[in-house]
Amino acid sequence: MIPLYDDLALARRTVLRRVPLDEIEAPPALRESIAHVFGERLTPDAAVQRIIRDVRERGDAALREWGYKLDGYSGAALEVTQDEIDRAVAHLDPALLDALRLAAGEIERFHARQSRNSWVDFNAEGALGQLVVPLRRVGLYAPGGSAPLPSSLLMAAIPARVAGVEEIIVCSPPQRATGQVAEVVLAAARVAGVQRVFALGGAQAIAAMAYGSASVPQVDKIAGPGNLFVVLAKRAVYGVVGIEALPGPTETLVIADAQADPRLAAADLLAQAEHDLVASAILLTPSRAMAEAVQAEVARQIERLERAEIAAQSLAARGGVVLVPDLAAAFAIANEYAPEHLCLLVEQPWQYVGLIRNAGGIFLGERSFEVLGDYVAGPSHIMPTGGAARYASPVNVDDFRKIISLIGLNEAALRRIGPAAALLARAEGLTAHAAALQARLGDEQQ
Amino acid sequence: MIPLYDDLALARRTVLRRVPLDEIEAPPALRESIAHVFGERLTPDAAVQRIIRDVRERGDAALREWGYKLDGYSGAALEVTQDEIDRAVAHLDPALLDALRLAAGEIERFHARQSRNSWVDFNAEGALGQLVVPLRRVGLYAPGGSAPLPSSLLMAAIPARVAGVEEIIVCSPPQRATGQVAEVVLAAARVAGVQRVFALGGAQAIAAMAYGSASVPQVDKIAGPGNLFVVLAKRAVYGVVGIEALPGPTETLVIADAQADPRLAAADLLAQAEHDLVASAILLTPSRAMAEAVQAEVARQIERLERAEIAAQSLAARGGVVLVPDLAAAFAIANEYAPEHLCLLVEQPWQYVGLIRNAGGIFLGERSFEVLGDYVAGPSHIMPTGGAARYASPVNVDDFRKIISLIGLNEAALRRIGPAAALLARAEGLTAHAAALQARLGDEQQ
Repeated sequence: MIPLYDDLALARRTVLRRVPLDEIEAPPALRESIAHVFGERLTPDAAVQRIIRDVRERGDAALREWGYKLDGYSGAALEVTQDEIDRAVAHLDPALLDALRLAAGEIERFHARQSRNSWVDFNAEGALGQLVVPLRRVGLYAPGGSAPLPSSLLMAAIPARVAGVEEIIVCSPPQRATGQVAEVVLAAARVAGVQRVFALGGAQAIAAMAYGSASVPQVDKIAGPGNLFVVLAKRAVYGVVGIEALPGPTETLVIADAQADPRLAAADLLAQAEHDLVASAILLTPSRAMAEAVQAEVARQIERLERAEIAAQSLAARGGVVLVPDLAAAFAIANEYAPEHLCLLVEQPWQYVGLIRNAGGIFLGERSFEVLGDYVAGPSHIMPTGGAARYASPVNVDDFRKIISLIGLNEAALRRIGPAAALLARAEGLTAHAAALQARLGDEQQ
Repeated sequence: MIPLYDDLALARRTVLRRVPLDEIEAPPALRESIAHVFGERLTPDAAVQRIIRDVRERGDAALREWGYKLDGYSGAALEVTQDEIDRAVAHLDPALLDALRLAAGEIERFHARQSRNSWVDFNAEGALGQLVVPLRRVGLYAPGGSAPLPSSLLMAAIPARVAGVEEIIVCSPPQRATGQVAEVVLAAARVAGVQRVFALGGAQAIAAMAYGSASVPQVDKIAGPGNLFVVLAKRAVYGVVGIEALPGPTETLVIADAQADPRLAAADLLAQAEHDLVASAILLTPSRAMAEAVQAEVARQIERLERAEIAAQSLAARGGVVLVPDLAAAFAIANEYAPEHLCLLVEQPWQYVGLIRNAGGIFLGERSFEVLGDYVAGPSHIMPTGGAARYASPVNVDDFRKIISLIGLNEAALRRIGPAAALLARAEGLTAHAAALQARLGDEQQ
């Protein structure tokens, strides 16, 4: 069910190997669908480029057409009205609405602690500082289609709201079954304080937010996870707008010692594996007994799952129980792999925090597990995937604000540091720079 | 010399219009050079993709070949030895070395103020926090070729060092004349605390740092400005490594009131315009007398410049003096344009800081001008260009550190927030998630 690797070198070459975005092969179904829709065998990237170009050129008309061609819906209105959102909130199971509100509250409380203030340092030479300024308009993508993910919407929208973003818009594809954006997504948007929701999915939604159309306003930055088309589109529009990351398939690395509960380890691996066919759930353990117990538990528990087929396939293709020499080796591998989620099912997990350099989020102990983080713990569950934890952060408040440098120096500063600037300018061959300095340094009046 | 726009609508359609990266036309010389080197008329992006693929496949051999084919040097060693750097430092004009050290000191002092600490909040439900962790290895690009820019190296390397990056490497192309990396660049690398320097330029340098080769180690993130090939290569490798931005042609927006000194305004515009043919220097003023005086001053001062030809061409193509109805309109235009540099040659400039939403850096008053910021003021001169100031920051310490979320919750937290997580998981159709919760919630032992 879940493969066991007792050859660490083999595991490194296979299940632990990182595949760059442009090496990921499009699944056959996607390739067929592209050939069908575009009439030729385009790469996913070329297909996405074509959609983006069309949306730039033809705006709303292109948005409607691609929605129909790719996702099979013919939405009359691109924007969901406030009335529709009101109705979705009123209509939602009150317990589910309460759960959304509880999650939103925890996410807000966590991110409100991430303080960062403008600072200006005044002294006899004037002032220098960094202004911290929220972005004005942000566009979020909330996956919808087959399985609407209201949690992802909360996890991006609330940090943006905490940052002080003026206007948050959301694009989410209508559900195939109803042609409407899922009620639970609309309710999440309201709970999160989102201003406008558009019934738009895929690359065309990203293009609309990047370039604007008659219906969709251009945003300053786009955030949120999506399928391959969404991620490729985000990469393509980066530079026209900001993007927070290129979130790929979700992944977890569980480190378990000999004392861990194999039932919980297996449950956590299965929760990861059920996401989709490309999800990755890996366990590292120095204990062969633990490895085998987890294997057996996975086989036992998977029987009861609704999404057993998906979980089985992703465990077979991208999952694994990997035997490591000791816990130190496990943490070294974790730093190299840089997992999105790093879950420590070990005694005294706090002892190991200082060893961890690369991870999106660290889950400490068996009561503090990934599924809590997926919904209600507080930190955003949109975390760097594919090894990006080497250099990137989970979605956080700073994704939605920026720095403006402030330079307010006076004559005293100019006299002290100006001559050095003139020397450096001349060394770079930039004599007009030197002249702009000389125009001040040669001029004694203040 | 510098065009005057008294029709604001026309200025918006021309000199103030933002051109996305993929609409920028390759200059004829570049097109010819691509045709010559590649034997066919590739787009710059396609040429860059080919170089990257080759470096991935053939490593050092490809690096040597592309250096020879594109930049005309046949460097024996890809890495500059520590001895060579020692000699460059010993050989440099001591006054210039002092100027580099002064600049480095100011840059370090400024960035050291940008504090950001890990935080962990402990309470009866356990702990939540954000660990702030420096990146391990960072690669910087320092433009070289015709005009070496040691200042850009300082402006990226010192924030990285302040962040606590373990290893900083630099790629800089050898000078055509000598086949060596410029002494002043090597000295700047030493002053900035850079560990290793590679004599490598262009897209091949970016590919080497993104994927690694026998000689060049793979980095976690690449930062620094460069020519079109460098920027396209950074965009192409984003996701394999982090990048800080896609820095394009440099630009300045000067706002001058009727009391400004037209000599200084003209000097600042010329300092901007001399950078290269695609640099942009724009002045907004509500005073026609000021506009005309600045025009006359530009014509007078340009005569004395070594780079007069470059400045004249960039002012004609991308520069302008734009008449605006009043200062309020000037600030509204500035926010829309989101300039890299925003220079306020107005009385009481501090009054206007609160109006500014989009800019890389704000320069307040005639003593606090862009050239000081280019070298010695302290903030990094690598600032968002092309309108990216809508969503991006100047290079700063946070570009070289990241957040890891810490989730250390206990049974009390699980009891309070777990049931909501289970409800949300079921609403998303993720029953293995619900099962992972149930495995804990159903289990009373702690």
